[in-house]
Amino acid sequence: MKNIVILGSTGSIGKQTVEVVKNNPQKFKVLGLSGRSNFELVAEQAQELKVAAVAMSDPIAAKKVKALLRDTAIRIFEGMAGLEELIALADTHLVVNALVGSAGLLPTLRAIGESKDLALANKESLVVGGDLVIPLIKEKGTSLIPIDSEHSAIFQCLTGEDRSAIRRIILTGSGGPFRGKEKSELEHVRVEEALAHPRWKMGRKITVDSATLMNKGLEVIEAHYLFGISYDQIDVIIHPESILHSMVEFHDGSIKAHLGFTDMRIPIQYALTYPDRFPSSLVGLDFLQLERLSFEAPDRETFPCLSLAFEAGRRGGTYPAILNAANEEAVAAFLQGEIGFLFISKVVYEVMLRYEPSVKRVDFSLLQEAENWARNEARSIIETKR
Amino acid sequence: MKNIVILGSTGSIGKQTVEVVKNNPQKFKVLGLSGRSNFELVAEQAQELKVAAVAMSDPIAAKKVKALLRDTAIRIFEGMAGLEELIALADTHLVVNALVGSAGLLPTLRAIGESKDLALANKESLVVGGDLVIPLIKEKGTSLIPIDSEHSAIFQCLTGEDRSAIRRIILTGSGGPFRGKEKSELEHVRVEEALAHPRWKMGRKITVDSATLMNKGLEVIEAHYLFGISYDQIDVIIHPESILHSMVEFHDGSIKAHLGFTDMRIPIQYALTYPDRFPSSLVGLDFLQLERLSFEAPDRETFPCLSLAFEAGRRGGTYPAILNAANEEAVAAFLQGEIGFLFISKVVYEVMLRYEPSVKRVDFSLLQEAENWARNEARSIIETKR
Repeated sequence: MKNIVILGSTGSIGKQTVEVVKNNPQKFKVLGLSGRSNFELVAEQAQELKVAAVAMSDPIAAKKVKALLRDTAIRIFEGMAGLEELIALADTHLVVNALVGSAGLLPTLRAIGESKDLALANKESLVVGGDLVIPLIKEKGTSLIPIDSEHSAIFQCLTGEDRSAIRRIILTGSGGPFRGKEKSELEHVRVEEALAHPRWKMGRKITVDSATLMNKGLEVIEAHYLFGISYDQIDVIIHPESILHSMVEFHDGSIKAHLGFTDMRIPIQYALTYPDRFPSSLVGLDFLQLERLSFEAPDRETFPCLSLAFEAGRRGGTYPAILNAANEEAVAAFLQGEIGFLFISKVVYEVMLRYEPSVKRVDFSLLQEAENWARNEARSIIETKR
Repeated sequence: MKNIVILGSTGSIGKQTVEVVKNNPQKFKVLGLSGRSNFELVAEQAQELKVAAVAMSDPIAAKKVKALLRDTAIRIFEGMAGLEELIALADTHLVVNALVGSAGLLPTLRAIGESKDLALANKESLVVGGDLVIPLIKEKGTSLIPIDSEHSAIFQCLTGEDRSAIRRIILTGSGGPFRGKEKSELEHVRVEEALAHPRWKMGRKITVDSATLMNKGLEVIEAHYLFGISYDQIDVIIHPESILHSMVEFHDGSIKAHLGFTDMRIPIQYALTYPDRFPSSLVGLDFLQLERLSFEAPDRETFPCLSLAFEAGRRGGTYPAILNAANEEAVAAFLQGEIGFLFISKVVYEVMLRYEPSVKRVDFSLLQEAENWARNEARSIIETKR
């Protein structure tokens, strides 16, 4: 029995994690859940999974959960301190971090600090804080298992392999809803069009990131930290059918790929069962039903976020945090109808251009400072466009 | 430094093995070579690689090699006894069995018996003698590394994985030169047409087997023994572009594949370096240059050898030996212009139909007896058609 805490249990990955756990009741026990504001769903999940504790980052939602669960022994925590209490629950083996955005970094650091294994769906933990997370993982000797389908694919391809044998990693992307479009066609796209992803059903923020290719860019930075490889060893290929979920080319010329339908429950279950695989009813592929599989180069001109991410990654230090914070603000503004689709990358570019990096060694407070600066800059740029 | 003996060094796989060794002179030392009749090439390879010994199965060829190498200290062995002496060379770590046909079984058993690791390109060793080879491997605790591209692909996909987690294995095949043809079109195909394989450059026998799909059938039986899985867990998919070299589907719904161009030096080098990977100049894939990848079901009616192989495999015992021996005779007759292409499968079918299996436990002499019977039956059937 593996004891699990799920951070962000009401989001897309969180809900699917709950589903995987429910399909394997004899193998997993959920000790704790966290949510932000969706108190009703958290309360429902908490009762169904018979958890020991719940943390709500929003204090008002915490009170409402407390009221809903008043007849149970379930403990209710609130705020970031509450999240930390949840992570520290003594019997937890594995923390699933399914939080959205750079707010996921601190919980990641806390989980590793508490020597818990970490199943990571929050890519910002590595994008923003890779320089802190990876050394801590090594120091504590815990496992870091990616949930992102591409990184899970690569992680699985590397099972039993020596990482020094990696020649390159090939990250695949569907190309998003605007693949093949030209810039002029994207001037006036509506939010709903950006949210209509052809392959994956995901949260709103990540779906917009898929449309701008920023998601792929963030994945590049994530892969850099996760697999300890240089940016020159990471290629991005657009594969619209999304059947091959990324590949590893080894230095002997061999290439391994992970394949499957776009079902996040497969990488989620793998992260929960690692290093084992548990049987599931999740289907593999019917190769006879597949369309022909195709590959093409990403259109870096129409979708400049990909190159911006490579650039931020190569510069390192606080640059990825700047990139990510500016992007979070720009996507939020796009989703609220404040700016057009093409302006998202302009905000990120402009913020990166204005940035004068600190020469200090990266630590958590420096990252926060850089992020705050980037958010302010991004907002001021967005203001000019409203 | 790994000390290697190459059995069948003058064939297609043997020559490429020599090439891989020559590309890694600091990592491999070839102690011995064997050939059948191509004494000139064997003598040339022996001098270039500075081997300790050479075995020629043909006594006349042995004498000719002896003459060519009379100014060297290289020892010359002859016949099957000579092959056994070669295999038993004290310092050998790895025996590469690149012999053609069921004649490869005895050397395989001898190599394992001498506790050498075995890199196996001779699929008949497992097709005919799987029931002897696999228990001996377990008894001796040696490594058996497949060289066949499909089985190397599967073997590599299983690195670091628990074999009990296999849901199924998907063997891919190009479909051979006659893919898409109907039976009526295959009545009068010429030998050269059968030898014009669209993807792989291989020996004559195996190229004809690719055209009949018997090669895929033999690979099914090989996979059954190699990976310890039932025939119900083996699927065959035609993938004309030959980029995916077989896949493994795990019971959690994950699928892993090995990809690459059709270059046998990749699986050969892997077999030599296993469990490590050595850097090579062999290129991976340029995904942007690929055709669209497609998959289709094998045409079991036009190419009945595939189903015959499944049937022989499922019946087990001496049936795979019968299938293989009948096929070897039929292919030889086709290559000599004695029978038409469609008659190959008829010979195999007819021999299997006539066979009344022994109830005795399979051992080497029983297999030989069964093979001899099948060869005689096959020849008599072929006679009726001449």
